Amino acid sequence: MTRGVVLVDPLPRIVDLIMEPDVRNRLERLGRVVISEDRPMPAEQVEELLPDTVLIFGQTDMPRERLDRARNLKAIINVESNFLPNVDYQTCVERGIWVITPAAAFAPPVAEAALGMALDLARGITQADSEFRAGNEQYGLAGNKTTFRFAGAPIGIIGFGDLGRQFRDLIRPFKNFVRVFDPWLPAEVITRADCAPATLEELMSESQVIFVFASVTSDNQAFIGAREFALMKRGAAFLLMSRAAVVDFPAMVRAAETGHILVATDVFPEEPVASDDPIRSTPGILLSAHRTGGTRDAFYALGAMAVADAELIMKGLAPQLCRRADPMTVGRFRSKPVSVS
Amino acid sequence: MTRGVVLVDPLPRIVDLIMEPDVRNRLERLGRVVISEDRPMPAEQVEELLPDTVLIFGQTDMPRERLDRARNLKAIINVESNFLPNVDYQTCVERGIWVITPAAAFAPPVAEAALGMALDLARGITQADSEFRAGNEQYGLAGNKTTFRFAGAPIGIIGFGDLGRQFRDLIRPFKNFVRVFDPWLPAEVITRADCAPATLEELMSESQVIFVFASVTSDNQAFIGAREFALMKRGAAFLLMSRAAVVDFPAMVRAAETGHILVATDVFPEEPVASDDPIRSTPGILLSAHRTGGTRDAFYALGAMAVADAELIMKGLAPQLCRRADPMTVGRFRSKPVSVS
Amino acid sequence: MTRGVVLVDPLPRIVDLIMEPDVRNRLERLGRVVISEDRPMPAEQVEELLPDTVLIFGQTDMPRERLDRARNLKAIINVESNFLPNVDYQTCVERGIWVITPAAAFAPPVAEAALGMALDLARGITQADSEFRAGNEQYGLAGNKTTFRFAGAPIGIIGFGDLGRQFRDLIRPFKNFVRVFDPWLPAEVITRADCAPATLEELMSESQVIFVFASVTSDNQAFIGAREFALMKRGAAFLLMSRAAVVDFPAMVRAAETGHILVATDVFPEEPVASDDPIRSTPGILLSAHRTGGTRDAFYALGAMAVADAELIMKGLAPQLCRRADPMTVGRFRSKPVSVS
Amino acid sequence: MTRGVVLVDPLPRIVDLIMEPDVRNRLERLGRVVISEDRPMPAEQVEELLPDTVLIFGQTDMPRERLDRARNLKAIINVESNFLPNVDYQTCVERGIWVITPAAAFAPPVAEAALGMALDLARGITQADSEFRAGNEQYGLAGNKTTFRFAGAPIGIIGFGDLGRQFRDLIRPFKNFVRVFDPWLPAEVITRADCAPATLEELMSESQVIFVFASVTSDNQAFIGAREFALMKRGAAFLLMSRAAVVDFPAMVRAAETGHILVATDVFPEEPVASDDPIRSTPGILLSAHRTGGTRDAFYALGAMAVADAELIMKGLAPQLCRRADPMTVGRFRSKPVSVS
Repeated sequence: MTRGVVLVDPLPRIVDLIMEPDVRNRLERLGRVVISEDRPMPAEQVEELLPDTVLIFGQTDMPRERLDRARNLKAIINVESNFLPNVDYQTCVERGIWVITPAAAFAPPVAEAALGMALDLARGITQADSEFRAGNEQYGLAGNKTTFRFAGAPIGIIGFGDLGRQFRDLIRPFKNFVRVFDPWLPAEVITRADCAPATLEELMSESQVIFVFASVTSDNQAFIGAREFALMKRGAAFLLMSRAAVVDFPAMVRAAETGHILVATDVFPEEPVASDDPIRSTPGILLSAHRTGGTRDAFYALGAMAVADAELIMKGLAPQLCRRADPMTVGRFRSKPVSVS
Repeated sequence: MTRGVVLVDPLPRIVDLIMEPDVRNRLERLGRVVISEDRPMPAEQVEELLPDTVLIFGQTDMPRERLDRARNLKAIINVESNFLPNVDYQTCVERGIWVITPAAAFAPPVAEAALGMALDLARGITQADSEFRAGNEQYGLAGNKTTFRFAGAPIGIIGFGDLGRQFRDLIRPFKNFVRVFDPWLPAEVITRADCAPATLEELMSESQVIFVFASVTSDNQAFIGAREFALMKRGAAFLLMSRAAVVDFPAMVRAAETGHILVATDVFPEEPVASDDPIRSTPGILLSAHRTGGTRDAFYALGAMAVADAELIMKGLAPQLCRRADPMTVGRFRSKPVSVS
Repeated sequence: MTRGVVLVDPLPRIVDLIMEPDVRNRLERLGRVVISEDRPMPAEQVEELLPDTVLIFGQTDMPRERLDRARNLKAIINVESNFLPNVDYQTCVERGIWVITPAAAFAPPVAEAALGMALDLARGITQADSEFRAGNEQYGLAGNKTTFRFAGAPIGIIGFGDLGRQFRDLIRPFKNFVRVFDPWLPAEVITRADCAPATLEELMSESQVIFVFASVTSDNQAFIGAREFALMKRGAAFLLMSRAAVVDFPAMVRAAETGHILVATDVFPEEPVASDDPIRSTPGILLSAHRTGGTRDAFYALGAMAVADAELIMKGLAPQLCRRADPMTVGRFRSKPVSVS
Repeated sequence: MTRGVVLVDPLPRIVDLIMEPDVRNRLERLGRVVISEDRPMPAEQVEELLPDTVLIFGQTDMPRERLDRARNLKAIINVESNFLPNVDYQTCVERGIWVITPAAAFAPPVAEAALGMALDLARGITQADSEFRAGNEQYGLAGNKTTFRFAGAPIGIIGFGDLGRQFRDLIRPFKNFVRVFDPWLPAEVITRADCAPATLEELMSESQVIFVFASVTSDNQAFIGAREFALMKRGAAFLLMSRAAVVDFPAMVRAAETGHILVATDVFPEEPVASDDPIRSTPGILLSAHRTGGTRDAFYALGAMAVADAELIMKGLAPQLCRRADPMTVGRFRSKPVSVS
């Protein structure tokens, strides 16, 4: 009996980035592994392998014509963690081909960093270090004139997917009242996590610390703008952890610059940020270069989740760790291809 | 019937610092309140009030001779949160006079800041902001070359009193293995909190992040020195949150300066720190000017705890929130008077 | 504009059983509601309504021919919580018709009862009451000769779906080491819940309390039999909470009868149990008449989850609360139609 | 140097009941151990040993005259877990002799059993087993006509010492609103545990399940009587877990008998209960023969806590696990000597 082909076409990732040796070994046991990681797999190679391919790890284009030739294909596992319009999702669904992505691998490090950055804004950690180095430090209560306790502060979470929910669990010991705005979810999902469903307006105006974990869709670009920032309490904190496009970025920067709110951001409209971008010297913003998710452990988790679900699929079982591409909703996402790992 | 005197002699605190209006009102209901807060209460006033005094809030000297005249005294509540040798503790115990302090009021803000500072060191938050402002930021994985995840990292806690235990509860969602070194405690107290008792050596050498929450006693001055820092793993983090005197401070600074470990400290051998102290430009140290505990809410909690326990004592019940001065152990503490609130 | 038809064909449930007034009102807002609950909806009525039907709540047969006529159908929501072979699941998938069920509604009451029954076996609660009434009670330590503490005891969970995971969260304060056997899941799902993946043999032989939460499939009928019960420690407890068919039921009863283990069961091979079934007088078994899931709140949750997901689907969003029927795995389940609510 | 005497006079306990071999070995290292466990240590032996005694484990009478002769005594550790008026507590305090008891050892098993008994009443577990055996079982919803979910039900806790607090932590996953009545505590202790301070009236009338964990004092005998039971909601549950004397026991039995409430009790006014006591056939009461605390692990914990604190005391440190006898409050307790272990 011949073993099926496991087609690995992982750019912008490479295999060693996402798989530790033991996971790589498990990958090898799934079939005959063929890898292209110095460049996207050339069309002729793809075409040649397709009839024997059982699994695709990567972002190979898979239009209807290719699917027609991939008669043994069981799953396409997107390891960029972005569903792009280069796959005929509807045909995959009809033929029982799983199209999945281990995107949740990045949730744990982002949630952790979000808490770190929130505690930084609340308690003035980076600010205090900077003042100390400048010789302007204030001791005791004098050093807490503009700080607040994160514990017990009203929190707002915008976007309550994997990331939002993991973050929620991380802050349980702080006993906050947590409002959630997520128009894609029923109230039950929010209340079961001991949070309160809220409108965007209520969340913006009542929260002391607001976290944006929402994905970009066709409907929500720049949905948080000057009007929303104006609703925030003076001195409240706003952390942008997911995608720059969901906010009116210049409005956010202005709200920090004027001292109305404190801001932390891990994402920017264009990355890398221009060397002369004035944000580099704007006060009241904690800057992070799209680096909260991209930790070594997260990339390894990405590969481990992908392989674990591939193992289930090869046994005829449903994947348990990756998210599925739903043809009905995938078209709404507005992710850009990842240019830096 | 005349009401007893409530003698309030709170310096270096003042009443408005530690009591919100409702707590102040509860104080007034405990007796006839006499306050001296612009200066320590003059001896003649103390002497005059003593026979009618039922409660002392503050740091009034109370040697045997004064206790002999304070026949109605039920409690001395130290609101500096430091037991100094100006009270005859043994005589208080013999006469059933409670001597207590609401020192635990500072534990919640310090624990919160300790987590914030630890996440800062682990994930490089202040460092990344600084690099971004200097135009040297690194995106994605490149920005994580020297960072590590706090979640799951082996943790060491030195000193497991109120502060250490509250901190332990704060990090539960991170699922760390936590070692505790505290020679004043039986193993049961440590294991019940889901931690492992450890020797100082084991803790120093096996932990990725180490927190010092220990008080200074006659036995433990500078007990963490060059030898102990050398035991630490390269790149591990050390956070000094309680008293500078428990470490060999110059050795700690050197360990950071050489890049062996990351350090954060909220305390210094002399405060305020001299304007030309080289620590102000030492890399690898996150600096905080003894400000993690002194938040407004902590001072209010101090007053609220003091008054709540006073209420119990006036009803003939045992205090529940403050710590007692044990004559047998109080002498070991080496706290200095608080010079800044 | 005409509103679509919401076809409600809920037997063996009825609408008032599963929907409180506010949920019923939300149902009415989804379209023109047509209900048949005194009998399954007659074929001619179904045929007439199909072209305008947008949602089906219930167990209506939906073969290919009917789906061909239901051109506006968006979802079939099974409120019996059993996927039976009366729906063409593959065609539904191809056409983007959601087929879902709020089966998880029963998990919370079953998990709660499972803990209650486990504490009963561990601490001898029903047994002690019975001895007291018979005049044979034993006080203090003498009353604990055969009991054990649930806290800290090694636990085994067989089947780690909604129910198993909710149960796991319910026992967190008891700090048990928890082994899980579930061949449909990758290790990651189990370890993330702070449990250890185990083989069936290891779980049976090492656990002090074993819970069966597994569904019946074509592969696992009677997979726990005499050999497995023999592996259990003397005096350990076995709780059958999901389906009788997963165990060799007579072997389980024998293991209790001989005093080898303690047993609790909520399910039986035939229900109702025959009036002369000897199990009614078997010692060592705690009996429950398939009643742990069927609480009033669970039925209401069933309806609320069904309607909440229908609301999402009508807005073009993915359901969030119900489980989907996967054509590839649905055929493996061996559930029987529900005969009693 | 001669080793001090460790006087062990533990009746009604015996050493092997409370100390596992490793703890016994630690006891031996504390000094020269002299045990009397077949009978209370005879006066002449006590008198002879007193001058050299450093530790007493047990209930030896220690009036002033004996304390005067016990010049090396550091601690009296009561292992019956009841402070009786046979010790001159005031003199002990004056001389720095610790008088302590590891009473909290019984809290974990009682808390666990309290939850088991509460789930039994709420979900009808013993009742359902009994009906099944009688051939009257009801399946599904019909079997839940009088049951309720413990999860989410409003809970009342009367007495919030070690036991009440441990119980509170055990039920956290059930997400109840918890009211606490404890007139010896300030509100802070209650709210920190995420409970609401309440009056007895409010607690009785608003709770679905009420737990009595209060000790008996001179002030609270029979403080829960017919008036309080009448305040309870029909069908609510009342669990008496601490001391029979805090309730009007006949009134409690009547409230169960009439079907007004469900009751579970682990304690009785006279123990053992008379063989013809009508409570043995009263419906609506779950009976337990003062056996929820007396588990083997609890007795071993008692001994381990006693020895661990003795080790600290011998090092000049404060005990950490046992409760102290406060001369000012110890006189209020109205415990009876323990007649059965």
